[in-house]
Amino acid sequence: MLLSCHDQHGLVAAVANFVVEHDGNIVHADQHLDVTGGEAVFFQRVEFELDGFGLGRDEIEPVFAPVAARFGMRVDVRFTDQLVPTAILASRQPHCLADLLVRWASEGLPCDLRVVISNHPDHAVLCEAVGVPYLYLPVTDDGKQETRVLEALDGHGAELVVLARYMRILSPRAIGAYPNQIINIHHSFLPAFAGANPYRQAHDRGVKLIGATAHYATDELDEGPIIDQETTRVSHRDDVEQMTRAGRDLETRVLARAVRAHLDHRILVYGRKTVVF
Amino acid sequence: MLLSCHDQHGLVAAVANFVVEHDGNIVHADQHLDVTGGEAVFFQRVEFELDGFGLGRDEIEPVFAPVAARFGMRVDVRFTDQLVPTAILASRQPHCLADLLVRWASEGLPCDLRVVISNHPDHAVLCEAVGVPYLYLPVTDDGKQETRVLEALDGHGAELVVLARYMRILSPRAIGAYPNQIINIHHSFLPAFAGANPYRQAHDRGVKLIGATAHYATDELDEGPIIDQETTRVSHRDDVEQMTRAGRDLETRVLARAVRAHLDHRILVYGRKTVVF
Amino acid sequence: MLLSCHDQHGLVAAVANFVVEHDGNIVHADQHLDVTGGEAVFFQRVEFELDGFGLGRDEIEPVFAPVAARFGMRVDVRFTDQLVPTAILASRQPHCLADLLVRWASEGLPCDLRVVISNHPDHAVLCEAVGVPYLYLPVTDDGKQETRVLEALDGHGAELVVLARYMRILSPRAIGAYPNQIINIHHSFLPAFAGANPYRQAHDRGVKLIGATAHYATDELDEGPIIDQETTRVSHRDDVEQMTRAGRDLETRVLARAVRAHLDHRILVYGRKTVVF
Amino acid sequence: MLLSCHDQHGLVAAVANFVVEHDGNIVHADQHLDVTGGEAVFFQRVEFELDGFGLGRDEIEPVFAPVAARFGMRVDVRFTDQLVPTAILASRQPHCLADLLVRWASEGLPCDLRVVISNHPDHAVLCEAVGVPYLYLPVTDDGKQETRVLEALDGHGAELVVLARYMRILSPRAIGAYPNQIINIHHSFLPAFAGANPYRQAHDRGVKLIGATAHYATDELDEGPIIDQETTRVSHRDDVEQMTRAGRDLETRVLARAVRAHLDHRILVYGRKTVVF
Repeated sequence: MLLSCHDQHGLVAAVANFVVEHDGNIVHADQHLDVTGGEAVFFQRVEFELDGFGLGRDEIEPVFAPVAARFGMRVDVRFTDQLVPTAILASRQPHCLADLLVRWASEGLPCDLRVVISNHPDHAVLCEAVGVPYLYLPVTDDGKQETRVLEALDGHGAELVVLARYMRILSPRAIGAYPNQIINIHHSFLPAFAGANPYRQAHDRGVKLIGATAHYATDELDEGPIIDQETTRVSHRDDVEQMTRAGRDLETRVLARAVRAHLDHRILVYGRKTVVF
Repeated sequence: MLLSCHDQHGLVAAVANFVVEHDGNIVHADQHLDVTGGEAVFFQRVEFELDGFGLGRDEIEPVFAPVAARFGMRVDVRFTDQLVPTAILASRQPHCLADLLVRWASEGLPCDLRVVISNHPDHAVLCEAVGVPYLYLPVTDDGKQETRVLEALDGHGAELVVLARYMRILSPRAIGAYPNQIINIHHSFLPAFAGANPYRQAHDRGVKLIGATAHYATDELDEGPIIDQETTRVSHRDDVEQMTRAGRDLETRVLARAVRAHLDHRILVYGRKTVVF
Repeated sequence: MLLSCHDQHGLVAAVANFVVEHDGNIVHADQHLDVTGGEAVFFQRVEFELDGFGLGRDEIEPVFAPVAARFGMRVDVRFTDQLVPTAILASRQPHCLADLLVRWASEGLPCDLRVVISNHPDHAVLCEAVGVPYLYLPVTDDGKQETRVLEALDGHGAELVVLARYMRILSPRAIGAYPNQIINIHHSFLPAFAGANPYRQAHDRGVKLIGATAHYATDELDEGPIIDQETTRVSHRDDVEQMTRAGRDLETRVLARAVRAHLDHRILVYGRKTVVF
Repeated sequence: MLLSCHDQHGLVAAVANFVVEHDGNIVHADQHLDVTGGEAVFFQRVEFELDGFGLGRDEIEPVFAPVAARFGMRVDVRFTDQLVPTAILASRQPHCLADLLVRWASEGLPCDLRVVISNHPDHAVLCEAVGVPYLYLPVTDDGKQETRVLEALDGHGAELVVLARYMRILSPRAIGAYPNQIINIHHSFLPAFAGANPYRQAHDRGVKLIGATAHYATDELDEGPIIDQETTRVSHRDDVEQMTRAGRDLETRVLARAVRAHLDHRILVYGRKTVVF
């Protein structure tokens, strides 16, 4: 259960009592109180076992509803064994895509991976090797490539869309269809070097670190809620090409970590920030 | 409140209800379930505000006692505004000592720093500058230096003893007097390079990282529960002297972090491990 | 050119003069003076362009021989465009193997990858997808599995053998056949937790960091010259399984970095240490 | 010797020959070829021993002059045992200042520290404790505080000015008087969060890392050549105050590292970038 509301007395007790009254056992619980904007907002993630729990899966939300109503909570109930239907979009660069596929194939990425879609034909063999459908949707003169991508996402029932170095900018319509469900990897430490060619920008500025940022895509390019970031050291010896190579590993693992956090239901978005429990 | 017991249903609810029944508000709560050794052990840290709380400070433990008894809990109640009486022991090297003093003087280390004791006379001026009593207790032929140190610790009412690169090995008697209350910094990534001259050992082995480890002192040298560790990169270019210099920064900040965690009452020790919330 | 000898006046000049006399241009040069063991040893790596160079590839060593003789240098001449014939050995776990294959396929690993050999059948599809021959050599009752592996390595002309989480211990005969040419990845920060089950050992000790170490294999298990190491933070929340998962990423990138350094001819071994330029 | 010029054949040999012809022994040598802007620029740092060297200190530059002229080199000759006259400017916050003083006092910062100047009176005791003159120059209505600071710097013969969280913006006149001789620490990962209140900016943006940047001060605020940078992880749990506290350690060690590199004569500035050997 992912919960958020204005901070009030008795919140933790009310949730814990709900669980214990139905013979549940809390395995993990995290909470956070954000007091930034004048008012205190409470966030909680409670993970409990369904073995021996007194309510069926469908009963949890309705039975909890009075508690939620009393405190004005936003409630989200997820089940660990119901894997999120996921699609990956990729362009020509293979590193993020290949990494996600290998993790998924070795059971390191708990999702229901339904399709890989790309505007390049190159990744078909790899997808076949791990057993994921591959859809090649090239950019065409009719301007309808994105429409076909959206239809494919819809057809496969995707509830999470991972942009694994997908170099096409999505329209507001596409982004609006998947609010906080599209994870992008940007190859810089945002907000530094937003936009095109971040490694060139970084090289021109003479920075001593390069970074990568995974964030939810929003209408404003590279401005969405940040999920994870990491940097690595570079020096005067690294030209743009070497920065790009060093950055590949960063991008790969920051994206994988962000996707994993989403799939584990550990992310709550508020405003343009995230709580990652 | 720091709590631990065998895992049972209703623990979180029982604690949360205790707080809410007396009109308290939980500011932070962390819990952990350790299932390593066959049985599940539950750990919890609950931080709540005393403003408006229905019990006086002295009433909290007795009123909570029935809850603790029901679940067989070990309970530890601490108050943020009651600073831990602390002593620092140092030898000739100044870096860890100076760092702790500067943090303390700029209010970055919330403790009641009562005395600095050293077997070297060098640090008197610095202690005077920040306003901490300095006790020079040199090693003497009568073999009673440690006795004098223990008397001084006792006389100053120390409840935390920080070994800031103190190069004397404490006797079992000294360690027994301060169970899980003596924090030592060892200049290696334990369990690698325990004992003397860890940087020389590291250099001889040709490692590419050096480390530092803060741990509670126990009777077995360098074997106590680890609180914090960190490593930093070295290369073939670093000789023992350069490793030592690079290591100083590591030692300094790992020790400061560990002391801070202790002072914030975020550490629970079990067996030879720690939970650091 | 990789050079080493006792330190003497005029070494740098002699090498630089050799290059300039034949109209070469030095692109990179690194040197190191090791003064650990009483005598000073000089190491150098000089990279220069063959475009416009006055000597053919085969002439370089003989023409340089008098310089080498004068200073008692060990000399190793390598050409960037002559890729090292490489074999990878793997067992059941796919992460290191898959990572190396993906890097190689996307031109991030400049080697002549000739074969992947495994005692498990699982990786055939992935190898086929990237176009590398796969040899499944199961462990058999006749005790001759290693002999077959060695024959295969020999048959493929391997000059570098990468143990990508290969869980079989190689015999002294096998190791002797490839001196400083076998790179192993051990899943701990050596010398801590050598031997079996390092993550379990790490968990039992309660460390706050886990590590990975890439080293050349020698007769003494986990005692060979270290090429690269890295650590990552863990906490009381990480059980052995989660440490293992977190460790996979470490192993993957430490091994890839070590292999890359070897392929770029940036490693010099002396005693049981390495210089990695 | 620090050298730079357009790349040409024979550079390394010419310099090495100069050293060997006068019976010198090269202890360290680093070189770098920057090919970014269309033309290749060569940078070199050569460190050799004066023991037994055939030229006096004053003879080195004139005797080397013909070599420098032939290649059009910019040449800078420095001597390890001639410590750089240094001044530190600080405001109210003590952490960077105290760290530099402690390093200097324990011989970890090889400079001739002549004076600490501050617009706050607080640091007098600490400076006295380590034996450095302290000059309190408060901001006054006559607008002449900077003039008095410049006079003091001049009077003490400072050749390096370290801004240890000095919160006054220097005028172009002040900066022009110390080209590439003023090191500032900015408490963000530049170019992100330039200007005022970087931790508040970082918190508002919801980043998962905070950073610190040491750079040479130029006329354009926070735009000077970057010497060193580092980041550390933060989370939703860190409010501005906690970010500020975590950032203090970053600032402290990034500034110390940058100052150390300058004092070791390992930095070459070109355009708005640095080569840090």
